[in-house]
Formats: sequence, C-alpha cells, structure tokens
Amino acid sequence: MSLVHELPIEIGMRHCDPAGIVFYPRYIEMLHDTVEHWLNHGLKIGVNNLHTNRNLGIPMVNLQVDFHSPGRLGDLLTSKLSIKRLGRSSMQMQVHLCGPDDAVRVEGRLTVVFADLEKISSVSIPDDIRALIEPYLDAEEA
Amino acid sequence: MSLVHELPIEIGMRHCDPAGIVFYPRYIEMLHDTVEHWLNHGLKIGVNNLHTNRNLGIPMVNLQVDFHSPGRLGDLLTSKLSIKRLGRSSMQMQVHLCGPDDAVRVEGRLTVVFADLEKISSVSIPDDIRALIEPYLDAEEA
Amino acid sequence: MSLVHELPIEIGMRHCDPAGIVFYPRYIEMLHDTVEHWLNHGLKIGVNNLHTNRNLGIPMVNLQVDFHSPGRLGDLLTSKLSIKRLGRSSMQMQVHLCGPDDAVRVEGRLTVVFADLEKISSVSIPDDIRALIEPYLDAEEA
Amino acid sequence: MSLVHELPIEIGMRHCDPAGIVFYPRYIEMLHDTVEHWLNHGLKIGVNNLHTNRNLGIPMVNLQVDFHSPGRLGDLLTSKLSIKRLGRSSMQMQVHLCGPDDAVRVEGRLTVVFADLEKISSVSIPDDIRALIEPYLDAEEA
Repeated sequence: MSLVHELPIEIGMRHCDPAGIVFYPRYIEMLHDTVEHWLNHGLKIGVNNLHTNRNLGIPMVNLQVDFHSPGRLGDLLTSKLSIKRLGRSSMQMQVHLCGPDDAVRVEGRLTVVFADLEKISSVSIPDDIRALIEPYLDAEEA
Repeated sequence: MSLVHELPIEIGMRHCDPAGIVFYPRYIEMLHDTVEHWLNHGLKIGVNNLHTNRNLGIPMVNLQVDFHSPGRLGDLLTSKLSIKRLGRSSMQMQVHLCGPDDAVRVEGRLTVVFADLEKISSVSIPDDIRALIEPYLDAEEA
Repeated sequence: MSLVHELPIEIGMRHCDPAGIVFYPRYIEMLHDTVEHWLNHGLKIGVNNLHTNRNLGIPMVNLQVDFHSPGRLGDLLTSKLSIKRLGRSSMQMQVHLCGPDDAVRVEGRLTVVFADLEKISSVSIPDDIRALIEPYLDAEEA
Repeated sequence: MSLVHELPIEIGMRHCDPAGIVFYPRYIEMLHDTVEHWLNHGLKIGVNNLHTNRNLGIPMVNLQVDFHSPGRLGDLLTSKLSIKRLGRSSMQMQVHLCGPDDAVRVEGRLTVVFADLEKISSVSIPDDIRALIEPYLDAEEA
C-alpha cells in the first residue's frame, strides 16, 4: 500500500480572479507548495538542506495539468501527492487537488530531475533519498 | 504566413527563487500574461470587454509545459504566441519563451474553451472572434 | 485581556528572492493572509459571506510596515493579529510576524474601512461585527 | 528640475481580486517593479550587477502606502518614482501610481538602506551611485 502525502489548502483572495474563481497560475503554486511540503514534512529532507548541504536541486522539466472544475473563494481543498515514476535521476509526481467531496478538480503531473547545483547536470538520485521516496511510489506503477 | 504575437518580458526579482533562477510557477504567469496581452493588443478584444459585455470567459482546461533551460535575473525574454488548433469551442495556443539568442527556453501549450459565464457551459467561438484568431493559426496546422 | 489571532507561516520557495531572503512584497501577502484567516476562523464571518451575503468589503486605505530582520527559506513564523483602533467605519489592525524566538521581524499596521460594495461608500461597522471584533482590541488602546 | 522615472503598468487578471479590483498586495509588487526598473533602466546600474559584482543589496526597512482609489482590470497606470530623501546609507523613494487622468491612486514611500550582502551591515552609498541618484532627488527636498 503506497503512501500519499496530503496538504490542506484554503482558497483565499490571493488565488482568485475577477470572475471569482481560482486564477490558474495560482494552482501551479499550489502544486509546487505540495511538493515542497512533502520534501520538508513527508520525506523530512528539507528543501533548504537539499540546496545548502547537499548541493542538490530538483528543477522542473515537464508539467502537465488538467483543470476539471473551478475553485472558488473559501473552498477547502486537499492536495494529494504520490509518485508515478522513479527513474535513475528523474521522477514524476502526481498531485491531485480535491474538493470537499473528494472529486479531483485539478490533476497535475510534474517531472523533475535531480541536479548538481554547481555543475548544473543531472545526477543519480542518492540512495538514502531514493529509499525515502519509494514508499510513495504508486502501487500500480511499481 | 501566420501571425505571431510577441511580448517582451524582463526577468525581475519577483520571478526568481533562492537559487537565482526563475521559480517555475512564475513562468505560468508569463504564459498567461502573453495570452492576455494578445487578447488586449493583438486581437484588440479586451479580456475585460469579453467578460463584461459579451459574458464570455476562456477557462484553461489543459496546460503542458516543457522547461528547456533556466532563466536568470535580468534576462530579456521574448514571448511568442501562435495558435496550434482552433476547434468549434476550444483552442490550443502555443507560447514560446525565448532567450536573447532566440533559443526556446520554455514551451507551453495551453488549451482553453470558450464558455458562457452565466451558464458555465461551452459555446461555439463567435464568428467575429474566430475571424480575428484565424490569422494566428500556425500554417502547418491549418 | 485582549485576544490575539495567530497563524503559523512557513517560508517557502515562493516567498524568497535570489538573495535567499523573503522578497518583501510577499510579506504583504502574509499580512493579508492573516487578516483573511482571522475573518474566516477567528471572527468566523467569512470573507466570501461578507462580500456575497452582506454586500460589504473592507478595502485597505493605509498600510505601514517596518521590516526589522530578514526571513529565510524554511523559517517557521507566527503571525499575530490584534486591533489597535476601532472607529465608526474604519479599523486599524496590527500584524506582527514573529520568528521562532518570538522576536518581531515584520510589523504591519493596516487601516481598512468598511464599505458598501454597491455604493462604494463607507458605512458604519454593523453592530454584530463590531461585537465580534471588540475582544481583539488591544487593552492599551481600548 | 528633478528627474522622475516612469513605468507604464497595465492592470491584468493576475492583479485583481474577486471584487474585480486590484488586490492590494499586488500594488506592492508594482511599487517594487518600479524601483527595479529604475535601477536597471534609469540609473543603468542593474540589480543583478549590484548583487553579483558589487556585493550590495538594498533591503526595505520601512514601507508606507496610501490607497486613494481602486484600480480595475484593463486600467493603464503610469508609475512615477522620485527620491524624497538621500541619506548617508539610506534613501526614501516616493512612487505614485497614477490613472489615465493623472490622478494619484496609490502613493508609496519606500525607505531602503544600502547594505553589504556578506556582512549584512549598512554601508555608505558609494559615490558613483550617489551621483546617479541625485538628479532624481525631489527639488523641494534637496
């Protein structure tokens, strides 16, 4: 049974457009916030520690998002992250933003690559980090 | 020969992350800004007019982005928009963010649907708007 | 003893600039988020309900902010809101963003006015809302 | 006659809230964008160059903003920057966001201090930079 990392998100003024619905670039921030929260509080690696002490970054290489239904001011969403694919140096994450009825409103697939911040070149995912990620690998995909 | 709508974008502090490169959700704002600038100054429809006087919105339904190379503080980019597909009520736009050497750094494909803001349902693209869009339809795709 | 509304805020990538510290316009978002969270979860009025059902808005008229020390990626702040002045139709809020050592890093004073959204004119703060706000009025000022 | 640095700003979707007016934290971004544009294109110093080659930053220490009238989607504003006070290591900038009728809608006063990025301590404004700034010093204040 694979793990899913969850983050509650409340839709606020800063997310909404004049039509009263979420301005879609703000959803991309929410997808990212979920990844960052997972690194900090799920894997307990810490983005800051990754950059500063291990000299590693995880730049985004591909992003695909389906927008199924609009979000509105005051909505309480749950963001759910799991791993779809774990390669040698890359990883595809799936992030679902779900409404109170658990219906998926926004569906993101984010592909990152582990990179050496000095050489700006891809590196193999370190073994200790891979071991932390593996429990989140979607069972269907494993 | 199809038209391409161009918008210059200068990378500022508000776009960059602690690693000194563009934080990728900010690129999605740039993709959107290009679409909005095209509606206002290319097609001369005006987003505001579209909402207020014609009761039309163009919600995003799918977004796909490839990130080829990082942007840095002070970079001068040119954003280039063309139309890849023009359907009955939907449209796929291609937006390329290019560096000073004209190399494509970020490549976005954005699919929107024309929608009635009151009924929240898709509508056929009005003929007058379709006629304004057609010159931007990529020749290869037409 | 007056009430203080608290909100925890974790400094993420989206807040920081290339120098690795919080980009100051992001602090203004945090000040606002605290006000919105207080309306939703402290006063339990709900910003959305205020707009939609009571036709009231609270536009900002004056903002004063002192920045005492920089915030960094990964910092855990506590935002603390109290009321400094409660007038007939206006109100001054004080929001302190404090570090883990409780030192005040950012000190905001935000003056809003209650306004009728249709007439775009100031109105007296309704009695039921005033009664909810009064417990947060700073004792020194009351 | 003192110089004023001007930047045109078009109000877009990303600036507006569900009430259809500019969300005030976005105005703070506009104030900052004006400062950054002035450094890059008025003084021709370049923020990036300042950080990287001269090891200097200009952190904000105090911000005061008056909001006189709301901005709406599609409005074309002109941002106007002048210098109110030029001290040994600090400087107060005034930024006015003006409507098409030239009325001041938002009035910001931003006080920064020149700082050594390594020592994180204030420094005297270098003579060459001071000479570039002086022409923007408001005549009334000089």
